[in-house]
Amino acid sequence: MRKLINAPADVVVDALRGLAAAHPSLRVDLENRIVVRGDAPRAGKVGLVSGGGSGHEPLHGGFVGYGMLDAAAPGEVFTSPVPDQILAATTAVSSGAGVLHIVKNYTGDVLNFRMAAELAEDEDIGVASVLVNDDVAVEDSTYTAGRRGTGATLFVEKIAGALAEEGGALDEVAAVAREVNERSRSFGVALSPCTVPAAGEPTFELGDDEIELGIGIHGEPGRERAKAATAIEIVDAALSAIDADMPLSGAEVLVLVNGMGGTPLIEQYVAYSAAADWLADHGAIVARTLVGPYVTSLEMAGCMVSVCRLTPELTRLWDAPVETPGLRWGR
Amino acid sequence: MRKLINAPADVVVDALRGLAAAHPSLRVDLENRIVVRGDAPRAGKVGLVSGGGSGHEPLHGGFVGYGMLDAAAPGEVFTSPVPDQILAATTAVSSGAGVLHIVKNYTGDVLNFRMAAELAEDEDIGVASVLVNDDVAVEDSTYTAGRRGTGATLFVEKIAGALAEEGGALDEVAAVAREVNERSRSFGVALSPCTVPAAGEPTFELGDDEIELGIGIHGEPGRERAKAATAIEIVDAALSAIDADMPLSGAEVLVLVNGMGGTPLIEQYVAYSAAADWLADHGAIVARTLVGPYVTSLEMAGCMVSVCRLTPELTRLWDAPVETPGLRWGR
Repeated sequence: MRKLINAPADVVVDALRGLAAAHPSLRVDLENRIVVRGDAPRAGKVGLVSGGGSGHEPLHGGFVGYGMLDAAAPGEVFTSPVPDQILAATTAVSSGAGVLHIVKNYTGDVLNFRMAAELAEDEDIGVASVLVNDDVAVEDSTYTAGRRGTGATLFVEKIAGALAEEGGALDEVAAVAREVNERSRSFGVALSPCTVPAAGEPTFELGDDEIELGIGIHGEPGRERAKAATAIEIVDAALSAIDADMPLSGAEVLVLVNGMGGTPLIEQYVAYSAAADWLADHGAIVARTLVGPYVTSLEMAGCMVSVCRLTPELTRLWDAPVETPGLRWGR
Repeated sequence: MRKLINAPADVVVDALRGLAAAHPSLRVDLENRIVVRGDAPRAGKVGLVSGGGSGHEPLHGGFVGYGMLDAAAPGEVFTSPVPDQILAATTAVSSGAGVLHIVKNYTGDVLNFRMAAELAEDEDIGVASVLVNDDVAVEDSTYTAGRRGTGATLFVEKIAGALAEEGGALDEVAAVAREVNERSRSFGVALSPCTVPAAGEPTFELGDDEIELGIGIHGEPGRERAKAATAIEIVDAALSAIDADMPLSGAEVLVLVNGMGGTPLIEQYVAYSAAADWLADHGAIVARTLVGPYVTSLEMAGCMVSVCRLTPELTRLWDAPVETPGLRWGR
C-alpha cells in the first residue's frame, strides 16, 4: 500500500488538520469532525450541510465556503458520518432560517442524515433533505437501494449554495437542489481500483487489460467488466448510458469530466475532448464545463462524466460567485 | 499501461483539443501547439511565455490567463518544445513591450528557448529569460547541468505574471522572476513511478516497500532510495533538505504541497498538516499556502514541497488577482 499517510486510523483527522492549517477561513472542529464556514451561522441564511465518507476530496469539506456549503461532516474513508456529527454540523450553521441536508444516496448516509434531522427537529431546527442519485450505471448497488449519488453532488451543492447565498428560503433552496438532481446524470469508468487505508487491499481486482464500466465512487462493481478501451470509447460508453436515460439532444448542458483521483489532468483533458466531440455530434450544446478531480475515489484511475441539463436560472446560479478551497470563481 | 488516452502519439494534441474546448478564453493553436491568452497581445504589456514537456499539467497551459502567463508552448510528454513552437508563442504575445521566457532548467528546454529567443530578436522582439532551478535534491541530474526547475515555476509564473499585469517593464518583471527563483526551493518524493505513453514502461522501478527521495518531475533519480515512510517522515526529509540549503527559521513563507498526479487530495492534506507542524516547530511563519496537484508528473504518486521566502512585495503580487484554468482567485 503506497500512501502518503501516517497511520491508516489517522488519515481523516490528519487530513482535517491539514485542511484547517491551509484554509484559515474554515473552522475545522476536530472533536466533532466537522468543517464549518468561518462566518457561520449567518443571520437569515439557510444553512447547507453535506457529508459522507472521506476519500472523495475535495467533496465535501473542500466545498465549504461562500456560495456553496456551510458545513460538511466527513466520515471515515468510504464510511458514513455518524448522526451526532451531522447534528453538530447542522447546529453550527443554523441561524433560524432552516438547514438543507444534501445527502448522497447510500444506505448508511440516508439513515444517519435522517436520524440527525430528527435530532435537529428536536432542537427546533427546521431541516429539509435532498437526495442525490444521479448515477445511471446501476439501479441498485452494493451500498444503495436505488441509484448512487456521485458527480452531480457538486452541481447540487454549487447551485443550491448560490441560491442560499442570495437569501433563498429553505423550500426554494431545497426545490432547486431537487431540480438539479433530477436534471443530472453521471457514469464512471475505472481503470484501476483503489485501496482503503484501513483495509490495505484493493477494493476490487482488474486484469491488466480490463476496465470497469459504471464503477461507483467506492469501487463498487459497475455494469460490466470490459477490455481496455480508448478515451473516445470510454466517453462514448459513459455519455451513451446517460443519453439513454436522459436524452441530451437539443439540451444546453453543464458537463463535468471528473478525474477519479489517480488519473492525471492531461488524461482528463483527453477525455473532455472526446466528450465535447460526442456532445456536438449528438446535438447537445455545451454551455458550461468543468474538468478536474472534484469527486474522487482515493487513488482510483479513471473518470466520471456528469451532465446537467441547464435552464437559464440554473446557469445563472452556476455562474454566481463561489469561494471555497475546491471551487472558486467570480468573486 | 492503464491510461485514459486514445493513442500514445496523440496524447498532447488530444489534451490541447480538450483544453481548447473547455476554456474558450484561451486560443489554442493546434498547428503550432501553443496555448495563448484570448486577448493577447495586450498593448504595452510584457508578454510572459513558458513551456516545457507535457505531463506536468496544469503547468504550463493551465496557467495561461489574466495575471499569469500569456502563452505556453507544450512539448511532447517529458520532451522540450521545439524552437519554432516557442517562437510562435513569443510572437503571439509580443506587443512591443518585450517578452519574458520562463525556462525550467533542463538542457533541452534551455537550448530550445535560447534558440527561440535568438529567432525572436531577429524579428525585433526583445526577450529576457529567467531560469528556474529550485530543486535542492541533486546538483546535476539526468537532464540538467545544475539544479532542476520544478515546483517554484508556479511561484515565478504567478508573481511575475502579476507584475506584468500591472504594467511592469521587461527588466522589472525579469528581476522579480529571478528574485522569486532565488528565494524558492523544492524537494520531491515519489511513492510510485509513472509511465510515458510513448514508452509504455515505467520510468523507473520501486520495490513494494520503497520510495525515492528527491525525485525529479520526469522520474529522474533523486538522492536516495529509502524504505517506505510516514507522511511526517517524508515531509521532514523534504523540508530538512530545503532548510539546509535555505534556512527557513524566522522567514515568512509561501508553501506549496504539490501532488505529483497520482496521489489523491486527502493525502496531500495529510502531508500539508505535517508541513505546517514542521514549519511551526522550526520557526518559520507560513503566510500563504497552496495544496493540490499543480506541477505534476503524469500519474506518479508522491508529493513535492516548495517554499518561497516572501517579502511584502512578493506577498502582494502573490495575492493579486489571477484567472487561469489551473489557478484562480480574487477577481
